[in-house]
Amino acid sequence: MLYESYYSMRVIWIVLLMVSIMSQAQGQERKHARAYGLKIGVLPTGQLNAITDVLGVQVGHTTLIQGNTVRTGVTAILPHSGNVFQQKVPAAVYVGNGFGKLAGTTQVQELGNLESPIILTNTLSVGTGLNAVVDYTLAQPGNEEVRSVNAVVGETNDGYLNDIRGRHVTEAHVKEAIAQAKSGAVAEGNVGAGTGTVCFGFKGGIGTSSRKLPANLGGYTVGVLVQTNFGGVLQVAGVPIGEELNQYYLNQQIKDSADGSCMIVVATDAPVDARNLERMAKRAMLGLAKTGGIASNGSGDYVIAFSSNPSVRIPYTSSKKTQTATFLRNDEMSPLFMAVIEATEEAIINSLFKAETMEGQNQHVVEALPIDKVVKILKKHHALNR
Amino acid sequence: MLYESYYSMRVIWIVLLMVSIMSQAQGQERKHARAYGLKIGVLPTGQLNAITDVLGVQVGHTTLIQGNTVRTGVTAILPHSGNVFQQKVPAAVYVGNGFGKLAGTTQVQELGNLESPIILTNTLSVGTGLNAVVDYTLAQPGNEEVRSVNAVVGETNDGYLNDIRGRHVTEAHVKEAIAQAKSGAVAEGNVGAGTGTVCFGFKGGIGTSSRKLPANLGGYTVGVLVQTNFGGVLQVAGVPIGEELNQYYLNQQIKDSADGSCMIVVATDAPVDARNLERMAKRAMLGLAKTGGIASNGSGDYVIAFSSNPSVRIPYTSSKKTQTATFLRNDEMSPLFMAVIEATEEAIINSLFKAETMEGQNQHVVEALPIDKVVKILKKHHALNR
Amino acid sequence: MLYESYYSMRVIWIVLLMVSIMSQAQGQERKHARAYGLKIGVLPTGQLNAITDVLGVQVGHTTLIQGNTVRTGVTAILPHSGNVFQQKVPAAVYVGNGFGKLAGTTQVQELGNLESPIILTNTLSVGTGLNAVVDYTLAQPGNEEVRSVNAVVGETNDGYLNDIRGRHVTEAHVKEAIAQAKSGAVAEGNVGAGTGTVCFGFKGGIGTSSRKLPANLGGYTVGVLVQTNFGGVLQVAGVPIGEELNQYYLNQQIKDSADGSCMIVVATDAPVDARNLERMAKRAMLGLAKTGGIASNGSGDYVIAFSSNPSVRIPYTSSKKTQTATFLRNDEMSPLFMAVIEATEEAIINSLFKAETMEGQNQHVVEALPIDKVVKILKKHHALNR
Amino acid sequence: MLYESYYSMRVIWIVLLMVSIMSQAQGQERKHARAYGLKIGVLPTGQLNAITDVLGVQVGHTTLIQGNTVRTGVTAILPHSGNVFQQKVPAAVYVGNGFGKLAGTTQVQELGNLESPIILTNTLSVGTGLNAVVDYTLAQPGNEEVRSVNAVVGETNDGYLNDIRGRHVTEAHVKEAIAQAKSGAVAEGNVGAGTGTVCFGFKGGIGTSSRKLPANLGGYTVGVLVQTNFGGVLQVAGVPIGEELNQYYLNQQIKDSADGSCMIVVATDAPVDARNLERMAKRAMLGLAKTGGIASNGSGDYVIAFSSNPSVRIPYTSSKKTQTATFLRNDEMSPLFMAVIEATEEAIINSLFKAETMEGQNQHVVEALPIDKVVKILKKHHALNR
Repeated sequence: MLYESYYSMRVIWIVLLMVSIMSQAQGQERKHARAYGLKIGVLPTGQLNAITDVLGVQVGHTTLIQGNTVRTGVTAILPHSGNVFQQKVPAAVYVGNGFGKLAGTTQVQELGNLESPIILTNTLSVGTGLNAVVDYTLAQPGNEEVRSVNAVVGETNDGYLNDIRGRHVTEAHVKEAIAQAKSGAVAEGNVGAGTGTVCFGFKGGIGTSSRKLPANLGGYTVGVLVQTNFGGVLQVAGVPIGEELNQYYLNQQIKDSADGSCMIVVATDAPVDARNLERMAKRAMLGLAKTGGIASNGSGDYVIAFSSNPSVRIPYTSSKKTQTATFLRNDEMSPLFMAVIEATEEAIINSLFKAETMEGQNQHVVEALPIDKVVKILKKHHALNR
Repeated sequence: MLYESYYSMRVIWIVLLMVSIMSQAQGQERKHARAYGLKIGVLPTGQLNAITDVLGVQVGHTTLIQGNTVRTGVTAILPHSGNVFQQKVPAAVYVGNGFGKLAGTTQVQELGNLESPIILTNTLSVGTGLNAVVDYTLAQPGNEEVRSVNAVVGETNDGYLNDIRGRHVTEAHVKEAIAQAKSGAVAEGNVGAGTGTVCFGFKGGIGTSSRKLPANLGGYTVGVLVQTNFGGVLQVAGVPIGEELNQYYLNQQIKDSADGSCMIVVATDAPVDARNLERMAKRAMLGLAKTGGIASNGSGDYVIAFSSNPSVRIPYTSSKKTQTATFLRNDEMSPLFMAVIEATEEAIINSLFKAETMEGQNQHVVEALPIDKVVKILKKHHALNR
Repeated sequence: MLYESYYSMRVIWIVLLMVSIMSQAQGQERKHARAYGLKIGVLPTGQLNAITDVLGVQVGHTTLIQGNTVRTGVTAILPHSGNVFQQKVPAAVYVGNGFGKLAGTTQVQELGNLESPIILTNTLSVGTGLNAVVDYTLAQPGNEEVRSVNAVVGETNDGYLNDIRGRHVTEAHVKEAIAQAKSGAVAEGNVGAGTGTVCFGFKGGIGTSSRKLPANLGGYTVGVLVQTNFGGVLQVAGVPIGEELNQYYLNQQIKDSADGSCMIVVATDAPVDARNLERMAKRAMLGLAKTGGIASNGSGDYVIAFSSNPSVRIPYTSSKKTQTATFLRNDEMSPLFMAVIEATEEAIINSLFKAETMEGQNQHVVEALPIDKVVKILKKHHALNR
Repeated sequence: MLYESYYSMRVIWIVLLMVSIMSQAQGQERKHARAYGLKIGVLPTGQLNAITDVLGVQVGHTTLIQGNTVRTGVTAILPHSGNVFQQKVPAAVYVGNGFGKLAGTTQVQELGNLESPIILTNTLSVGTGLNAVVDYTLAQPGNEEVRSVNAVVGETNDGYLNDIRGRHVTEAHVKEAIAQAKSGAVAEGNVGAGTGTVCFGFKGGIGTSSRKLPANLGGYTVGVLVQTNFGGVLQVAGVPIGEELNQYYLNQQIKDSADGSCMIVVATDAPVDARNLERMAKRAMLGLAKTGGIASNGSGDYVIAFSSNPSVRIPYTSSKKTQTATFLRNDEMSPLFMAVIEATEEAIINSLFKAETMEGQNQHVVEALPIDKVVKILKKHHALNR
């Protein structure tokens, strides 16, 4: 296994920065779908249209682009900025299709909580992710006596562009993603765990979106972050982009496998208990469906949902045998379900809009979604500015 | 409880027939979505575009329209024309959202098979459905010693149009639906268990569709039948019909609840085992999502999937301790997943296209989906004849 | 279907009463296991050693013994004496082995609550149970607008002693069991849904037991009621009674099938949410295991658990979008788990100790557990008065 | 993290060997429960009474005992001696209680197969286990193109005796356990992943047992291996050893937490598909129950079950779209269920009989189960040589 020094990390970041600047210089910066007049769903977005619109949620990326072969990375999502082990959050996991290696699922389901950052990376680096989160948690002030940590580490397989067998992600990379985590705008596209992914035959990556319910429905925010690496028949806001571009699963001319995976993280500031978070998690797959995803046999489609609402945190230790909390009634869940569906759909589309063409190992090239063509098609279908 | 004689049944059928004839006379017969040039998905349909395209599957309806208050019925789906208890079929159930009363789920999941017709009816008539299926099964030739029957009876709530508290479905009605079951074209819309249902704020009902895989993918057929009674933000082939008609969930002007339910039956002639049938069942919810369904809190969204392939039937008794069978490998499932998604989406749309305006109890009227307007909108969005 | 009038019901009860009196006159009344010096587990029982030790829980039976062929009945368990639909209780279901027809499971799991009495009866009468609970609920004052009821109706198969195909349980019988429900001592053995059941090759039936935690562990009560109709290798407080009596599954001399089923109802006054109630439900199967049960292929082993604690009830309607409640933390659950295990084990043993020899259809006779012999064996193994 | 060289490994093994020899010299070698006349259950054992009685199954241990603080290790179970990735085996996972970190569960459940060795280790070393299995699999001849590996790595927490925060298990240790795997007798007690575990307040460890069905029931073998680290109220063959030794959960004098975990691996040569393997896995918890285990809140109790039968292996690649296989019918599963229960119970008891007193970090000492006393108690209860 290679050891990636912090020095080389810095080099990578500089290179990335230069690439980014050059892209902008050429006026080619890719924007969120909404910047082109696309509206997905009927609910308004949060301020940033990002998972970080949800109070306290932080996101960090480590992007690994080295030579011709390394195209991978790590994305960390923190449910809040405190010590998550000491102040756990209600959480749930839903398995859309379990051909994947998401670690940490059973404890989240059993206990109804999340006690670590969520790490996304590539398929063969889950073990490294676990080790890093364990290290990170053991080292946090206040955790000196902790002897058990349930790390949640998910993945998709970037092995087409990335030398995945080389296992270039190190524990340092994982910790760097956690350390970089911050609120505010979230980098999307070819960053972090999305660096080397492929979606609907185009370059996938990290995407995010959010929804804010009207005040009369509680005013809650739902944020979604996705790592897109899956296939199907792409639809953008219902428009058959995949068919129009002649790039879709079961197209008899080209052999496009729908395989791959999608990791989906759902956050909300609504006070929702673990049972209803599982129901919210389930709805994320409905959002994926609306982009044309089919949860193919080879897909690892997982949803992790949590509530960052400070009033429902679960202290690791307590002087009391009980916890008093105020949760939404079942009857109030439907608007949140819709928010999850819409934000998931848009997060996936954003990942495609933001990801740039990438060349990786073996001269493999995955083209970015051709925004110009897509915009034309969307216009033809009256899908813009409506 | 009222006893509905066969005589009154006949009267109802005659009335229905007359209504049907009158409609046709006025040139108002509503057609399948495809008749208007709509294409959903990329796979071809089966011959009838119905669940009965799947070898051996039979469907029967009992439609109850009486006076101003009774708008309900029963739909029966038979996996094959033989003695299903003696020749069980591999089967699975997936719970999209469990706010419903589907009976028989746990045994199907535990044993991986289905041993009775599937009955759909209204929420408060599940017990009657169970009793009728038990009676029916005990009375079948060859079942003289049977003392345990796992009837699968699902429902949606037609209580807006129908006097559901009156519990007008009798065991005779259920048996009649089973007796009426046949292969060939399937009546859709306001028939059987769909007589009184509401979907996306319009009249829902029974819908069906099918897909046939290309020969190089096995040539298998997947058929879906739905009982639609749910809400959300209607999309037809991706086009935002609900928004264009100003009729959708969370529309702030009108108060449209997204509640209700959807029962989905998935049949295939592919040799698929119970584990992979469960995976197929899961995909039906992705098809529902593409119509704009959100699986709201109050929805009972269930999928029952079975294989009618004769070579994989499970005999009740056997001289052998083992069964030898040939099943599809996991790797071959994705095309079937896509077929389920497409057929479910289209079956739901068909239920809306076929259902007619209905007046029921308390002068409640539910308008049919306005096909003329819908067709115009579809045209505007370039969704027809593409 | 036969209609059993209230008159004939009264005759049956009189006969039963006479039988009971005669038994006592002969000094043959069978007692709880503890009356013979047997202690199961390390926790103390509640006052009555019955599920009714749990605040508010009520139990009622309808016992059907008619002629030579009818040996069946109904047992109703009410989580509290109020309107359960309007004041639902947190609840969960666990499927130990799903070869059974328990209706109502998916909604309990989805919504985390129970809104009806729990009905136990025979396998072919689940539909009748559903119809009766629906009727009962619709007719309750305050439920005039209710159009959806999730009845929970479980069963075991009493078809060896009982003419189960005759389907002698009527809706009136089910309502009678509900009407009879009361707190206080619970009739056990050949009563209600246990009238015709067989357990470990001996006469089974209804059994109950309870545990009360010490004050420093919260002082909560756990009560269990079982309908025993299953097999395996009987152990009483760990003593190999089945082997000593040469009556056990896989004994090569006699052909004893281990098939059958066990319905288990777990109640507690501890404030436990649905997720932790599911965990408690799971532990009931560990209690069953300690009696020698194996959850055979043909067994329908189900556990329904609920909290009757008034502070955690879930109102059907509420002026608030949220509910504030105080629940036990995960860390406090283990003593309750142990209470469930012990009470389930003892409830099963009690069903065997209380059930009397029964002759049913086709001259089938099932002998009661021979208490005299069992006591001798228990003594030999130093299992009494320790 | 320390790097444990092969050299230091050898030193450890030599030390262990010497300890072993010394023990034997003192006539203190601890034997299987059966050697003392104890019989658990009614079915005969396999030849070695070990999981390796199941055709093809291999077990290997790496035991880490270093200085005063390191008391941990790794146990590897191989379903067969070939390339498991290329020749997967039908498999299932059941979660008895999910407070644990078992990685790899969702893919096993989704696809119904196992494609790697099963690794058991300590709680904080799961990531290292994953990394090692990925390395091992990528390096196997024939796997040159493999880019996705689902490693199954389980754990219990040995943090009382072992410096678990020091994370002393390395990838080399994991690979060593795999390399050491062999058929034949299995070392038990303080070896491998059981080196530092505690069970019922006594020294736990690795235990194994098997059952062989009579020829008329198929003659199949079921083998179980456990890593015991849990609590409750110990029963040995039904005899209340915990109470007699005054060492049990909820004993008010001593504060014995029942927390901990139990990993259970179930193997069979019976041709059982994934669905029925899940049912077998579920029964292992019934065996655990019979030892007095309660699946406490803090317990990670997991069961992994697989069939090693060569005729049901699932090739990674195939020229055919289908697989033909012969599986046991549902009706034939009960004897296998009983075999699982018995072998699990005995494997746990064997782990206690074989584990020796261990001193670890912070002068923590965990006493071995006092066999002399236990034998006396068993005699008193007529539990020996019956």
